[in-house]
Amino acid sequence: MVRKTNSEVNLVNDSISILGGGSWGCALASMLSKEGKDVTLWVRSHSQYEEMVKEKTNKKYLPGIIIPDSLKVTNDLEEAVVNRDIITLAVPTNNIRELLTTLKPIINKNQILVNLAKGIEENTDLRISDICNQILPDNKYCAISGPSHAEEVVINIPTAVVCASVDNKVAEYVQDIFTTSSFRIYTNQDLIGVELGGALKNIIALGAGISDGVGFGDNTKAALMTRGLYEIAKLGAAMGANPDTFSGLAGVGDLIVTCTSMHSRNRKAGILIGQGYSLTDATNKVGMVVEGVKTTKAAYHLSQKLNIEMPITNEIYSILYLGADVKISATRLMGREMKYERDILDFYKG
Amino acid sequence: MVRKTNSEVNLVNDSISILGGGSWGCALASMLSKEGKDVTLWVRSHSQYEEMVKEKTNKKYLPGIIIPDSLKVTNDLEEAVVNRDIITLAVPTNNIRELLTTLKPIINKNQILVNLAKGIEENTDLRISDICNQILPDNKYCAISGPSHAEEVVINIPTAVVCASVDNKVAEYVQDIFTTSSFRIYTNQDLIGVELGGALKNIIALGAGISDGVGFGDNTKAALMTRGLYEIAKLGAAMGANPDTFSGLAGVGDLIVTCTSMHSRNRKAGILIGQGYSLTDATNKVGMVVEGVKTTKAAYHLSQKLNIEMPITNEIYSILYLGADVKISATRLMGREMKYERDILDFYKG
Repeated sequence: MVRKTNSEVNLVNDSISILGGGSWGCALASMLSKEGKDVTLWVRSHSQYEEMVKEKTNKKYLPGIIIPDSLKVTNDLEEAVVNRDIITLAVPTNNIRELLTTLKPIINKNQILVNLAKGIEENTDLRISDICNQILPDNKYCAISGPSHAEEVVINIPTAVVCASVDNKVAEYVQDIFTTSSFRIYTNQDLIGVELGGALKNIIALGAGISDGVGFGDNTKAALMTRGLYEIAKLGAAMGANPDTFSGLAGVGDLIVTCTSMHSRNRKAGILIGQGYSLTDATNKVGMVVEGVKTTKAAYHLSQKLNIEMPITNEIYSILYLGADVKISATRLMGREMKYERDILDFYKG
Repeated sequence: MVRKTNSEVNLVNDSISILGGGSWGCALASMLSKEGKDVTLWVRSHSQYEEMVKEKTNKKYLPGIIIPDSLKVTNDLEEAVVNRDIITLAVPTNNIRELLTTLKPIINKNQILVNLAKGIEENTDLRISDICNQILPDNKYCAISGPSHAEEVVINIPTAVVCASVDNKVAEYVQDIFTTSSFRIYTNQDLIGVELGGALKNIIALGAGISDGVGFGDNTKAALMTRGLYEIAKLGAAMGANPDTFSGLAGVGDLIVTCTSMHSRNRKAGILIGQGYSLTDATNKVGMVVEGVKTTKAAYHLSQKLNIEMPITNEIYSILYLGADVKISATRLMGREMKYERDILDFYKG
């Protein structure tokens, strides 16, 4: 592919820094490194760093995968960042603010931020681009989102994602650098829609898991996902997104993979809750950050503030935070009086 | 629920006839009969009729299910039809024309036709409502579609579907008669969209199965489903459907359940083809009608005639009918030059 945009974004060496050694950061770093890209991965935990350097494994987050020799792994944030063209944020949503604050003295304004996290910040209800804009307002920003389980990307399973930026030149540059034969990237300028699609779909994935855990079927889950997609698109539109973005890879695409795959942490947590586990026990059992839990709270607040009816999000909020009974909540959702599908779908006309 | 529309549609006893003893007809008849509705099921095959009456089973189509005593099962089409308010068509798409021709002398114009089949007629490329309109133009018609695997509906797994008719009074009457506590029905006046959603999603389900059979992952399948939904909505719009209907239960809802569930015959056939079976061997192994196979041919013809670009349908047509290699086709789809997601999604603006 012909690189068109490097000079326009003032970069030097197409080098990639990925900050965060969880599943997604480690998978993307390993895959890109094996493809011959110049990649450095920063890992916060010293013991994990030592395991990755000495044993070439990351057993907690990517069991069974060998870290390629070509991937530079470091425990030193400054070393990971200095002189890299692309700074990729691969930490959970609620760690982003702290990471950006630490980055502030060592980053320069030509470095492009690429965010991989999918969530809304707790308490502030901010999208991740909003947080970046508060702390590093001079840096260009894009978000990569879409159906991309780390466990599959790292073994070169064909995957297609979206790279969104308000500056299409930046999105195109990142597209050129990150694209490989098995990892296809499409650009989209609706940053709000892409960020919200990735974040809000985790709420529906918790609901899909709960439906499975309670013992409902594929029919039930498909109905829940269809209605869930509609209500997250409605909230998205009220927040400035183009509702059609929810029909794309970062919307329905990511929703499908998260609600139906056993790789999904949000779905796994939902299954456990549906089976009767408490929220704390369920998230402890999953053992990694379940982004949908805090995003449900943020979406609930936003729906109240913006006066958007979100019956599925409300029920999941009630189950997670108010101790509502899962079977009663599910039955309540099925029993809602809503006779005309057209009344719902006409929303998409905008 | 208060019945509002009986008098307006001139009916007498709210009785339901279901014609066809395959999985869906038998499941719906059994479920409705257990709920106290007056249901008669017509079964064409004499040996199947005898099994259902004497042994109370339907081992080929619904293994493990007991036929309720309350369900009237008959082998005589006239007995099934005479004096019933609702005549439900539960035979494969390409048997509908023959069935309607046989019905013509025994049906009266006040009887409402409810179609359950999801396909496009081979050679004519007609929707099922078009066929009904040719043969029984005086009868009111609606289509029930959406994510509704028979195996789940028959055991009262919560399910939500759409009932579509150009005459909303008729759709509301059928909604009132068919709704139970576990089977929710929404009405939609976009008959073309609902019929096409149900038919065309089977093409994408074949593709999803092929992707699974080849050994691709959940990421790949979600991307294929997202792009597939877009291209069937595009063909639908060209045929007069409201593209938003494809975001509802008969569109994305049915697509999800058909592409991800092991109950789906179309997906099963696709998996076998992806594993290297010929089309004939794959459909023989599934042992029931795989509607997507003929619908792929119809959709391919329609896309040519209406000049709609449908890359996924084209590749599946090539695999099924032109002997294309599945791996090469799949790789070709992933390698398509299409850089801006917005170019696709802008279609939904209409």
